[in-house]
Amino acid sequence: MTFALHPRLEADAHFAADWQLCRVLVMNDARYPWLVLVPRRDEATEVIQLEAPDRTQLMEEITRAGRLLQTLPEVAKLNIGALGNLVPQLHVHVVGRHPGDPAWPGPVWGHSPAVPYDADALAGMLGLVRAG
Amino acid sequence: MTFALHPRLEADAHFAADWQLCRVLVMNDARYPWLVLVPRRDEATEVIQLEAPDRTQLMEEITRAGRLLQTLPEVAKLNIGALGNLVPQLHVHVVGRHPGDPAWPGPVWGHSPAVPYDADALAGMLGLVRAG
Repeated sequence: MTFALHPRLEADAHFAADWQLCRVLVMNDARYPWLVLVPRRDEATEVIQLEAPDRTQLMEEITRAGRLLQTLPEVAKLNIGALGNLVPQLHVHVVGRHPGDPAWPGPVWGHSPAVPYDADALAGMLGLVRAG
Repeated sequence: MTFALHPRLEADAHFAADWQLCRVLVMNDARYPWLVLVPRRDEATEVIQLEAPDRTQLMEEITRAGRLLQTLPEVAKLNIGALGNLVPQLHVHVVGRHPGDPAWPGPVWGHSPAVPYDADALAGMLGLVRAG
């Protein structure tokens, strides 16, 4: 089975890396360090549909993503979410938050339009993932 | 170490059960079937602070909670979130959603004030958890 990203994820985020289970994307919103993990399991729409070893691996990749984001000085809190109300393909958000960010203390999802990265800042985020 | 719920969780939700890792609460909002899993690890504020076996167990308890909610006919989608911007004690939301619910397709967190359960509906939700 060929893995393909949902067009909405393709449009809203940049490819960073393929880890063991997940494709790792950087959400194109410079206001938040925000990774999206997409398990390369085409049929999955819910975390709980994954087989148990994949669920464990997903948790480990969430942890890896969270630890990368925590190396950034501005990250005071992690927000992790699997929603999928708009994009059915299973994907997990791992977002670095801090008091005073635009959506704080509410969730980032649906809060306000993204502010795209400039090239240098995007390269920095992609480099963070690729070095980790 | 004695485990104690954060007062905000104590106020907003009802005790349903203690599973192997987590205290399981029913959020007191009759508009959504909504469970909250609180790992009984007093010091934890982030999923990624848990030891690896606890992370795997948390994922299994998220799965158990999600499968219970999916037995309800109104649940079309699960939303899973670990935020903690307001309540630092680590807790994971597992929420049953459907198109047309009050916050759909946005997240439930921060959307609008809860509508408390009446006694019969609350008993039904607590029974779902306790039977599962």
